[in-house]
Amino acid sequence: MAPPRGRRRSPIVTLSSDLGSVYSAQIKAVLARSIDPARVIELTSDLPAHGIMEGAFLLRAMAGGFPAGTIHLAVVDPGVGGRRAAVVFECRDGSCLVGPDNGLLFPLAEELGRPRAFSIDPARVGVHTRVGTTFDGRDLFAPAVVRLALGGEAEEVGPPLEPSVLRLPRATHRPRGATGEVLHVDRFGNLITNIPSRWIPAGTRRVSSRIGRRLREAPWVSSYEALAPGSMGVLGSSFGTVEISARERRAADALGATPGTGVVLTWTGGRRRGSIGK
Amino acid sequence: MAPPRGRRRSPIVTLSSDLGSVYSAQIKAVLARSIDPARVIELTSDLPAHGIMEGAFLLRAMAGGFPAGTIHLAVVDPGVGGRRAAVVFECRDGSCLVGPDNGLLFPLAEELGRPRAFSIDPARVGVHTRVGTTFDGRDLFAPAVVRLALGGEAEEVGPPLEPSVLRLPRATHRPRGATGEVLHVDRFGNLITNIPSRWIPAGTRRVSSRIGRRLREAPWVSSYEALAPGSMGVLGSSFGTVEISARERRAADALGATPGTGVVLTWTGGRRRGSIGK
Amino acid sequence: MAPPRGRRRSPIVTLSSDLGSVYSAQIKAVLARSIDPARVIELTSDLPAHGIMEGAFLLRAMAGGFPAGTIHLAVVDPGVGGRRAAVVFECRDGSCLVGPDNGLLFPLAEELGRPRAFSIDPARVGVHTRVGTTFDGRDLFAPAVVRLALGGEAEEVGPPLEPSVLRLPRATHRPRGATGEVLHVDRFGNLITNIPSRWIPAGTRRVSSRIGRRLREAPWVSSYEALAPGSMGVLGSSFGTVEISARERRAADALGATPGTGVVLTWTGGRRRGSIGK
Repeated sequence: MAPPRGRRRSPIVTLSSDLGSVYSAQIKAVLARSIDPARVIELTSDLPAHGIMEGAFLLRAMAGGFPAGTIHLAVVDPGVGGRRAAVVFECRDGSCLVGPDNGLLFPLAEELGRPRAFSIDPARVGVHTRVGTTFDGRDLFAPAVVRLALGGEAEEVGPPLEPSVLRLPRATHRPRGATGEVLHVDRFGNLITNIPSRWIPAGTRRVSSRIGRRLREAPWVSSYEALAPGSMGVLGSSFGTVEISARERRAADALGATPGTGVVLTWTGGRRRGSIGK
Repeated sequence: MAPPRGRRRSPIVTLSSDLGSVYSAQIKAVLARSIDPARVIELTSDLPAHGIMEGAFLLRAMAGGFPAGTIHLAVVDPGVGGRRAAVVFECRDGSCLVGPDNGLLFPLAEELGRPRAFSIDPARVGVHTRVGTTFDGRDLFAPAVVRLALGGEAEEVGPPLEPSVLRLPRATHRPRGATGEVLHVDRFGNLITNIPSRWIPAGTRRVSSRIGRRLREAPWVSSYEALAPGSMGVLGSSFGTVEISARERRAADALGATPGTGVVLTWTGGRRRGSIGK
Repeated sequence: MAPPRGRRRSPIVTLSSDLGSVYSAQIKAVLARSIDPARVIELTSDLPAHGIMEGAFLLRAMAGGFPAGTIHLAVVDPGVGGRRAAVVFECRDGSCLVGPDNGLLFPLAEELGRPRAFSIDPARVGVHTRVGTTFDGRDLFAPAVVRLALGGEAEEVGPPLEPSVLRLPRATHRPRGATGEVLHVDRFGNLITNIPSRWIPAGTRRVSSRIGRRLREAPWVSSYEALAPGSMGVLGSSFGTVEISARERRAADALGATPGTGVVLTWTGGRRRGSIGK
């Protein structure tokens, strides 16, 4: 069954990439030749270079909040010019996602729900000649976005595709603890993990963290301000997962952690399962 | 007396923060669900991390030039989740400022004139649940901006507030000189001080600068071009204050200066007060 | 003969500079006081500081793709406040370019065709007082853009000007090779040269590159994926010129190359001129 269509005649188009502003501007130029630039919102051109996993996590966090029917163009594409397909996902709410079929768009597509995937055929989006083979964002994805923004259906861009699956690593719940990993180091050097904050029981006071090979104990707090300057703490991040931070200092540097670094948490002071709290 | 209201039905909304593009994009998503994204202008997501004083100075310089009735959302917020209030200022021209009540918005509010401050009550801007406690920009300030942009009055967001006062440090005029400090290091490494350029008398030829513990003499010039490559000079900056620069080199690095570094200037060659001619 | 005019009543305005977001925001403020901010697109505020040649190359690549009648404001302006003029170019398609007359705009103006240049007279664009002498982007170019965006003709901003000529260095074709230079190091550390990709004959398999004083041989490939991780290759860039890259590594760092570094290529395996088949 085809999903219901929520796409408007003049949808919002978002841009997210690791391309930097100069390449991203060339995508904006292609869009501006056909659609109203007032509808185009750059989310970021500054995703970690070549970081498909981290990019997929951030894209979902940024783009997931946009209205039904939005078109999201995303590029983290180390395989450009090679064998990976170019994909359009159409989701339950009529949102469309356009980019490389390397997993980058997959977690967002799943979150938006009931995705149908199509392989972009250059000829079907009006692309007959190419300047090079290294910039599909400008030369293929942007023309596909134009087609969709002007009212084209996702299935018109090319044949159905079995998309590449990328699932973000999931954390494991253990008694009084959890095992997971760092998904993202944010601008402040905070470590954003994949461990759901709701796993931390009410009343937890301290959390022991093994991050890579370093073991630290730190308080479970609800603000950076609750920490002494420079000292470490564990918080519920704005992504809904556990965050390891240092007050006005870069925890990532202090701990030598990067996306992919393993994290083992053990908490103390909270209610045990089934116990009757205070 | 209530200030006159200049707010339009569909005001411009500006965004300024130290959040980086990925967090800032999540604010844009909240706004895009309710207001026309064509009205939203990102000024910067790249203010110095945690730099409230420098951020306040830059915010005033950026946002002060916008039309009457603009809504400015600003975030430099190391105290998020803690005791500081969330504030809406409404100013003489109907402009509203939304952000943490940590002083960041205060110099801008004073410049815009006759500010009235209100504490944001989450329930009154439609916020009943929160993902975490670390991102009020997305979870509290953006909903408040939406309320205002859709025509709400500032006093509807919550009760009146006695706001936190932050006054930018002022320079002191001395005979043939001035004492002040660096407020901002710009992208080129130029030192922007708080010493008004108009204090430098006409005819001044050279300025001796003690910056931190380093003493330099440099010409008073009106362009970088007047300097030999790499050499230092003193200019009237675009902020209306004295700037210390090195031609196509980073003066901040050469002098080891950062925001807060003290600056003592002594000028020579200009007219003395009351003297005639040069 | 005057060029035909394609300018619309409410043209797109693009911004490109090396100013960083804080100074660029002050340009946006001036524009927002007079024209619809929905028409203003920031291309970049992150051009290499003081890099007129690289900026000219990138500006042409970014702005050249915009619709007829667009107004492009560009600032890479180490000579601000000095003797260089301020210029408006009007081109064949009605596009206008506004910025310093230091060559930055020249390659774009030539590409857009039949440029006529005018020197900006501050009084004629409504500028009578100035805060300082270091920020013509805000204080002179932006008012000129406003004048043009509101329907003013280019010749109204000031008298005709013989503009400063800047020609991007051209590569030289040699038998089975070419001599050129690096014009741009992109965000990924790829070296973008000025050697046209179409000079590489069909069937070329390997390219020997002398970059500065280092000699390397690398395969001629059509995707980064064709390279072993970390190893080097030569590709046709998205600028239409030869690019030297390393897979998921910064070729510029590995080779010590910057804009201006000389490049000598020799290719093997392709068809010789006049030969039949491979």
